[in-house]
This record gives sequence, C-alpha cells and structure tokens, in this order.
Amino acid sequence: MKQMSPKIPIGKLALLVSSMTEDELEPFSDQLKDVDYCTGKAGSMNMQKIIAAVETAAKRNHIIVENVYRETHALYHAILEALNGVMRGQIGAGDMMRTVGLKFAIVRGSPYEDLEEGEWIAVAFYGTIGAPVKGLEHEAFGLGINHIG
Amino acid sequence: MKQMSPKIPIGKLALLVSSMTEDELEPFSDQLKDVDYCTGKAGSMNMQKIIAAVETAAKRNHIIVENVYRETHALYHAILEALNGVMRGQIGAGDMMRTVGLKFAIVRGSPYEDLEEGEWIAVAFYGTIGAPVKGLEHEAFGLGINHIG
Amino acid sequence: MKQMSPKIPIGKLALLVSSMTEDELEPFSDQLKDVDYCTGKAGSMNMQKIIAAVETAAKRNHIIVENVYRETHALYHAILEALNGVMRGQIGAGDMMRTVGLKFAIVRGSPYEDLEEGEWIAVAFYGTIGAPVKGLEHEAFGLGINHIG
Amino acid sequence: MKQMSPKIPIGKLALLVSSMTEDELEPFSDQLKDVDYCTGKAGSMNMQKIIAAVETAAKRNHIIVENVYRETHALYHAILEALNGVMRGQIGAGDMMRTVGLKFAIVRGSPYEDLEEGEWIAVAFYGTIGAPVKGLEHEAFGLGINHIG
Amino acid sequence: MKQMSPKIPIGKLALLVSSMTEDELEPFSDQLKDVDYCTGKAGSMNMQKIIAAVETAAKRNHIIVENVYRETHALYHAILEALNGVMRGQIGAGDMMRTVGLKFAIVRGSPYEDLEEGEWIAVAFYGTIGAPVKGLEHEAFGLGINHIG
Amino acid sequence: MKQMSPKIPIGKLALLVSSMTEDELEPFSDQLKDVDYCTGKAGSMNMQKIIAAVETAAKRNHIIVENVYRETHALYHAILEALNGVMRGQIGAGDMMRTVGLKFAIVRGSPYEDLEEGEWIAVAFYGTIGAPVKGLEHEAFGLGINHIG
Ligand SMILES: [Mg+2]
Ligand SMILES: [Mg+2]
Ligand SMILES: [Mg+2]
Ligand SMILES: [Mg+2]
Ligand SMILES: [Mg+2]
Ligand SMILES: [Mg+2]
Repeated sequence: MKQMSPKIPIGKLALLVSSMTEDELEPFSDQLKDVDYCTGKAGSMNMQKIIAAVETAAKRNHIIVENVYRETHALYHAILEALNGVMRGQIGAGDMMRTVGLKFAIVRGSPYEDLEEGEWIAVAFYGTIGAPVKGLEHEAFGLGINHIG
Repeated sequence: MKQMSPKIPIGKLALLVSSMTEDELEPFSDQLKDVDYCTGKAGSMNMQKIIAAVETAAKRNHIIVENVYRETHALYHAILEALNGVMRGQIGAGDMMRTVGLKFAIVRGSPYEDLEEGEWIAVAFYGTIGAPVKGLEHEAFGLGINHIG
Repeated sequence: MKQMSPKIPIGKLALLVSSMTEDELEPFSDQLKDVDYCTGKAGSMNMQKIIAAVETAAKRNHIIVENVYRETHALYHAILEALNGVMRGQIGAGDMMRTVGLKFAIVRGSPYEDLEEGEWIAVAFYGTIGAPVKGLEHEAFGLGINHIG
Repeated sequence: MKQMSPKIPIGKLALLVSSMTEDELEPFSDQLKDVDYCTGKAGSMNMQKIIAAVETAAKRNHIIVENVYRETHALYHAILEALNGVMRGQIGAGDMMRTVGLKFAIVRGSPYEDLEEGEWIAVAFYGTIGAPVKGLEHEAFGLGINHIG
Repeated sequence: MKQMSPKIPIGKLALLVSSMTEDELEPFSDQLKDVDYCTGKAGSMNMQKIIAAVETAAKRNHIIVENVYRETHALYHAILEALNGVMRGQIGAGDMMRTVGLKFAIVRGSPYEDLEEGEWIAVAFYGTIGAPVKGLEHEAFGLGINHIG
Repeated sequence: MKQMSPKIPIGKLALLVSSMTEDELEPFSDQLKDVDYCTGKAGSMNMQKIIAAVETAAKRNHIIVENVYRETHALYHAILEALNGVMRGQIGAGDMMRTVGLKFAIVRGSPYEDLEEGEWIAVAFYGTIGAPVKGLEHEAFGLGINHIG
C-alpha cells in the first residue's frame, strides 16, 4: 500500500490562521490560496453556542454546503475533536471553564496528492481559558480533522 | 481583581516551534529570545516512550531542573494535557493509533506582566497520526500549559 | 472455575425491543415471556430527563421495586453504561447533541443457568441524534447491563 | 431546512447482523439487499487487533476501497465510536477486559432519500465480555456510524 | 419516598483502612466489627494486575463468594470506579503512570438501616504515584462502591 | 536520582479532614499543625458552583493568595482531579447526579523533606451522591494534588 503524508497541511494552516495576526500570516498567503478558509470568534464556553458559531460561519462563508447533512456531519465531528484539545479531557469541561476569547479557523482543501482522497476539513481553536471564578487565564489550542465532500 | 492576558504567548510559540520549518520560524526569532525552548521527536505511539522523550529533552536542554520533582510534575501534567489534544479523547488512545511522526516543542517563560505570576511551561505536539493498520494518516496537534518554577 | 455464557440474552432482547416494530418482534415473543420488560421514549438530550424517564418507566411497570435503593442503583448504572454507547465518549455529550427521538427498553431476567446468579437488568437506547444546530441526524444505540435483585 | 430521518437504517441492520442467527435474520433479507455488508469475529480485547480485524474484513469483502485512505479513515472512526459503546467509557478499557467472543458487522449503504447525502457506513459489535480474571461474562454492544464514499 | 444516608459508612471505612496505620485505626475498631474487610498491596500500574490482586484478595479472605459471577461483577465495577479516582480521568492512565506502592482495602457490609437494602461493597486505593520516568511521586486515592449479595 | 516519598501526607490529611468528625480528628491535631487547611460544604452538583465554593473558601481562609493567578491555577487543577474521583469518569457527570451533601478540605503544606520541592496543595471531597430522581444515595470521595507557591 502506498505511504503518503499530507501535501497541503490543512491542520497546520488552520492552527496558524486561528492564532496569527495578519502580518504574521503574510508568508503563508500563497499556501492559503490552495484552500478555502474562514475565521470567527466564540465568546462563551457553552458548547452548543461554540458549535453553532462554527457551523454558522462555515455555512455563511460557503466552506460547507448548507443543505447537505453529510457536510454538516463532517464539520461537526471535526469541531468535537478540536474541542477535545481545548478542554484537554476534563470532565464536564464546558461547565467548568470560563473563556475570555476563542478564535476559530475552518480550512477546507485537498491535502493529498492522490485526487481520489478528495477534500478534507480542519477546525482549529485558539484562545485563552480561565476558571469559572473571575480571574486570569492561559492559552488553549484544539485541532480536529475530517474527510468531507 | 485584575484581568490580564498573557504578554508572552508561550502556547502559541510552542505551536510554531513544533510545526514550522526554520525559515518559517525566522520572523519569530525575536519573540523566542524571551523564552527557553527546545524540540524533539517521538516516533512511537507508546505513551510512556513519548513522555520519556519529552522529559529527557527538557532535562538535557536545561528547560527544567533535573533533581526537583515539582518541575518534573509541572512538565508531566503539561505533557498529559497536550496528549489529550493529540488523542482527541478517544479510548485507550495510544493502543489504537500508529504514529508516523510527531515533533514536540517545550517552551518555558514568564507569560504575565506581573512578576509574581512567575514561570510557566508549554508543551506542543504536531505531526501525523494513522490507524494501526499500515496506511495513510492525517495531522494532529496538542498543547498543554502549566505553572512551574 | 465454571465458564458460562448467558442462556437468556437480556442485552440482545433489550436491543431488539428498543429498535424493532411489533411485527419484527413477533418471532421473539416466546423469548420475551421469560423476562420482564417495558419501553418508553425520551425526547430531550438532557441527561437528567432521560434518566428520570427510564427510572419512572421502570417503576411504573414494576420492573424495579420503587422503595428499594439498591434496585434504583442497579438500574441507574445500567442507564449510564447505555448512555456511554449513545454518546460514544464525546465530551459534555448531552450539551452538544440534539436528539430527535430516542426509544428505550428495560429488560429484567435471569440470564444464567445457575440460579445463584440471580436477576440482571439491561437498558437499551435506540434512536436518531443530530447536532444542536437544527438539521438532519443519524442513528445511535447504547446498551448497559447490571446485576440486580 | 429539510428534516429527514434515515430511510434505510444501516445502524439497526448492523445491530441485527451482529447479534442474530441466520434464521432470525431471515425476515430482514429484503432490507439487507439494499446495502453491502459483511461480518467477522474478534476474539481478543486488544484494541489494535480488533480494529485490524474489522478493517481487514471490510477490505476483503470490498465494503471499502483498499487504496483510498478516506475510506479507511471513515471506517476507522466508525469502529472507534462502536468501541466506545462496547467499553462504556471505562478507563484503559482494553487493558482491563477479557473478551470471550465479539461478533462484528459492517454495513454500507445510502440511508437518506436525498441522493446528495451519499453513502454511510455502520459498524456494530455484539458479544460477551468478562473481567480479566478468568470467570463469567455478560453481553456488550456498540454501534458507530460515519459518512463515507 | 424515604430519605436515608448510610448508617455504616463502608466507603469511609475503606478509605481509612487503606491509608491508616494500625494505631491510627484503633479508634475505629468497633465500627470495623460491623463489616467484613481485608487489605492488600499492588506494586504495578498494570490495570489487569491491580484488578487481579484485588479480586484474589477478596476471594481468599472470603469477602466475596468465589463461584458466583454476580459477586465478582459487583466487585469488578467497584474496582473500576476506584481506579477512576486513582487515575483522575487521564488518558490511557495505566500506561502513563509508574506506581511505587498502592495499598487497597475491600469493605463489605450493610450500610443502610433498612434490611431490604442488603449488602454493599467498597474498594479504596491509597498510595503514591509517579511519572514513568524514574523520579519522585505524590499521593493518590480512589473509592468505588457497589451493591452486592 | 533520589527516591523520596512524602514526609507530610497532605493528601491523607485532606481525606481525614473531609470525612472525620472533630473527635475522630483529635489524634491528628499535631500533624495538622504542620499544614494550612480549611473546610467547607458544597450542596449542589453544579460543577461551577462547587469550584467556586472551594476557591472562595481557599481565599477567605488565606490558603491561597487571592491576587496571584498561578495559585488559583494550581488549586483549580487540584479541584478538577478531585472531582474526577467523585464522578468516577461518568459522562456529563455533574448533570446526571444529585448530591445530598459534599464536604471538602483544602490542605497546603510542604510534603517533601527537600525544601526545594516547596509547597503543594491537596483538595479532598467526601460525601453522599444520589441519582437525580429523588431517592437514596451512597458515599463518594475524590482527591487532587498539585504543586503550588
Ligand atoms: Mg481522524
Ligand atoms: Mg490550566
Ligand atoms: Mg459489567
Ligand atoms: Mg456522527
Ligand atoms: Mg453508584
Ligand atoms: Mg500529579
């Protein structure tokens, strides 16, 4: 069986888009031309609201096709995987955290040389997360990847 | 109570160091002067071996003090948090994956303006992960952060 | 030590009762005479409401004894095990899903030949589950088994 | 947005194929003509071996295309979801169980009326699981579903 | 419905027996007369070995009936619950830890005033746990409780 | 490398303070002089409220320094670890339980002989937990430990 790593690293691009300033992203502008992507913000730690924010952004920016469930399904599981990284496996995570600001990036493209591998989607979150009692916070990242399209 | 975001984003720096080429890292060379960091590779999906690889790199590069348990403890929990992102909450993760290549970065610094907040440590993993049956793979990422020192 | 598989598969019966039409269940009517069982529906993804719905059905149909805590305890952990299958280990599951319809079955019986093994209880859920943003959905199943009585 | 439940319940069919005798399956022979499916057995609780057994069966029976990673990826996550149900969220599950016999079914089809929704895959496990110390066991079940193709 | 807290706190007794010296346990000698209990040690972090050690101790000391599966089943789930506390929800826990010494206690009794509630079993672990790389360690506790008998 | 177990078992002391009556604690009054500690109660199963109750108690009793985030961070992760023991890895735990009474203890001290190891913090919960449907309950316990200060 063939052995093949991603040619276009949609995961890395999603991580960079979610965490970099426009200036910092400049050197990646060429790579970003090979994919579809968009960004958005989620200001609450309520899981339903975060998922809805990402799905809405993906549909408004035509990253996924609105009326096809399989596209929403692919995105949904990529979001869940990314949230696992943000929450780091802690119980009832969403209920126990207080986010001050989370930026997300959605990247869709064809990472593999072989055209049969088709399109994939990456979701990345970057931001700061704090305890529910008002206070300070530290950074958190999450990345999820899925086949789509 | 004061409200304060990280001044030096050690988590983002760990992401960049773990996923970028030397050329891509160039624009961040100034920011990297404000922190201690090192990198390494983990070629197996055995959890004990990955943890040992990161701990050994951290000690050899004097990112943590070898003989102080609290420093190993701080690093250890940062590694575990990062592995949660890599594994995305899947059961018995390590036993069910086959990694093709994982690069890690360890970054230690003082992220907060207030000196009392002291030093913190960030651990990032970036690479590709595949199913245990020999085949292809997609990207994965994880970040963990902890107070130290 | 003796080696012994269940003689009456209360788990399989619970799965069938939760997912089959009356016509489809017809061939199992004889097997179902050997156990006590009941069914019900849960229309929300709120975990407390689902658990309450199953417990209420079990008590109303005299599958468990209402005033004995150990019977409620046995049922409760069987429900939790079944919900793990429905949620497939995803974080904060209940908060991130939107169910369109979940049917449950509770089956109580003596699965083992050896009378000393006593009674056991099985809880099965079958239905369709969707993302919280209004859309389509796919099927989900869960099964939990515990000793009781 | 349209609201639509599965027309062909590939999850239920996978459940039936994994748990029923040939006689019991007879009434479902017509429904099974609408899907591709195969079965197999996994006699160990080692996660890697179970995953390999399912993947091998899926490829040998041409349920998935061997050389396309996205098909293996879709199947892989369906297996993981199904194993979550078998293991019921217990820690290090595979290491703490001793299975006596697990039968699996893989079902591939087009569950939705709308052709754009394409093909989906369901994986079901049914069997008995015991504690690692030689003894008796009870039933366990798991179902995973994913978009594919 | 009646409201009732445990009269004999088998969980607390298990915690004390697992962590106290004989002298420290002296004031509880009267309470311990009301229950059956035993202790043992587990020197490895392999989950199967820990479970086997507890089950063997329980059978040798006649805390559970050897030939009745439901008793082993009740104990098994109490052990799993206790291990969740020891591992604190970390992924692949057993594979990532190195224990230096874990003492366990098994307590069986009738905690509730109402005789119908019957017998229950508590399993407690106390010890020190360290990272897999040879070093120092800190304490860990776990408690699991189940109905039995 | 040196090998060293805790000299002052702050975890065990937290267990004792969280579960014992004043009379029972009497023999440990000398050991308790070597640490800072306080106790409190949490009457709800809402995770945010429990965390807030412990953090507030820790600050009011000067166990942690109010204005230093790293101290809140250290306490926060100790609380999360302890809650893992209370919840025993069950999904969406907080949403599925109904607590009748949980007492917590926070203990801060220098467990290790080597002064460089500095201060550590232990959080213990002990109480009774019941199903959400009004009924009876059994004991639960959790312990978390972290480096601090
Ligand atoms: Mg994947
Ligand atoms: Mg943290
Ligand atoms: Mg069981
Ligand atoms: Mg799904
Ligand atoms: Mg219980
Ligand atoms: Mg620790």
